[in-house]
Amino acid sequence: MTDDPRLLRYEVEELFFAYVECLDEGEVERWPDFFTDDCLYKIISRENFERGLPLGAMLCEGKGGLKDRVVSVTTTSVYHDRALRHLLSNIRVKGVANGVIDVQANYAVLETLTNEFTTVFNAGKYLDKLVREGDGLKFKEKLCVFDSVMVPTSLIFPI
Amino acid sequence: MTDDPRLLRYEVEELFFAYVECLDEGEVERWPDFFTDDCLYKIISRENFERGLPLGAMLCEGKGGLKDRVVSVTTTSVYHDRALRHLLSNIRVKGVANGVIDVQANYAVLETLTNEFTTVFNAGKYLDKLVREGDGLKFKEKLCVFDSVMVPTSLIFPI
Amino acid sequence: MTDDPRLLRYEVEELFFAYVECLDEGEVERWPDFFTDDCLYKIISRENFERGLPLGAMLCEGKGGLKDRVVSVTTTSVYHDRALRHLLSNIRVKGVANGVIDVQANYAVLETLTNEFTTVFNAGKYLDKLVREGDGLKFKEKLCVFDSVMVPTSLIFPI
Repeated sequence: MTDDPRLLRYEVEELFFAYVECLDEGEVERWPDFFTDDCLYKIISRENFERGLPLGAMLCEGKGGLKDRVVSVTTTSVYHDRALRHLLSNIRVKGVANGVIDVQANYAVLETLTNEFTTVFNAGKYLDKLVREGDGLKFKEKLCVFDSVMVPTSLIFPI
Repeated sequence: MTDDPRLLRYEVEELFFAYVECLDEGEVERWPDFFTDDCLYKIISRENFERGLPLGAMLCEGKGGLKDRVVSVTTTSVYHDRALRHLLSNIRVKGVANGVIDVQANYAVLETLTNEFTTVFNAGKYLDKLVREGDGLKFKEKLCVFDSVMVPTSLIFPI
Repeated sequence: MTDDPRLLRYEVEELFFAYVECLDEGEVERWPDFFTDDCLYKIISRENFERGLPLGAMLCEGKGGLKDRVVSVTTTSVYHDRALRHLLSNIRVKGVANGVIDVQANYAVLETLTNEFTTVFNAGKYLDKLVREGDGLKFKEKLCVFDSVMVPTSLIFPI
């Protein structure tokens, strides 16, 4: 584990950017590779998160859970053709303890449907726990807390 | 004062990210801590700024002025429940002279009202002057030049 | 050419931020200075790009082509008064070979028309090739792949 906070933030940013590129390019099959085997992935509304209510819009436990989600995403045929585009900001290392790196970041996902203009699909913050595995960083936990209380019906893909 | 431009930009980014997190988390009571005692905080439209017209949508002089704003914000009850989410980009150190660091950055504030989807609330640029105080950086001047000529009626919180 | 990936990304970011600032400030006359003499600049829809169709929404070959575009932009009087604001994210150095640096980044351009609120004008990704010229980096190729299949009629300025 590096002791240089600048180097650590650089590494974290590179992981986040690769993660986002995977999703924006529609290569969802590679998505589980960014996680540890015992990971937790959850998308939850700000309201439920702040009230301590557990119900999320998406929940995947373990890399197997992520792979199940990939199967359901890639075999579902009822979604519109659309492009997703992530903008990340404010990527901050909040702390490092026992080999776990706490990271918080703001995200916005822009959506462009065929024959329509671009809108903000979903925005919020990531509250993530990263660990070093092999020669890189992986998500042990990724919590996407979105600002709306409404869940878009098209929230099928991970964000 | 560091002579390494990369280190300086890193420090500036860390300040901006902490600033934004304070506002996005709704912890406006901590907002004045990011400023010097003799600070100037102003939100102004692009049109007025470019014409040299002084009228701004919000003006706070000195840390006392910021604290007054905090009181008025936290005791006002007529605003909607909403989430704000800042995206920053293009954080650039434009120059350093006499201990004052000139910084310019692009910002967008996304807004999510209860039961509505996310929209762009306000966008523009920060034109800031930073100084070193103690072991960190503080805003001596923060000028938020927003792109619209319209002032949203809900512009109550600092941005 | 630096071998330090962190330094290289810092240099690339500084180039991108200066480029964006030039456009956001409306200083389009300086825009060709960011390119090499033999550059290629193209704005193309995601659909055409992915299908290998060559037709773009804007194409400039060589610095002369860029300067022609500047003339047409600055002498056209049929566009609205508006502010453009770029948000960049995920700036990634994808590879370096034979002195050419491959860079990919996400962009969103926000637009604010007079008396209207801010909307997302265009979003997509940059697929760029950079080379070192003199003591700085320049764009040898800049490909703007936007997410919509619709071309906004107001796509007059470079993005």
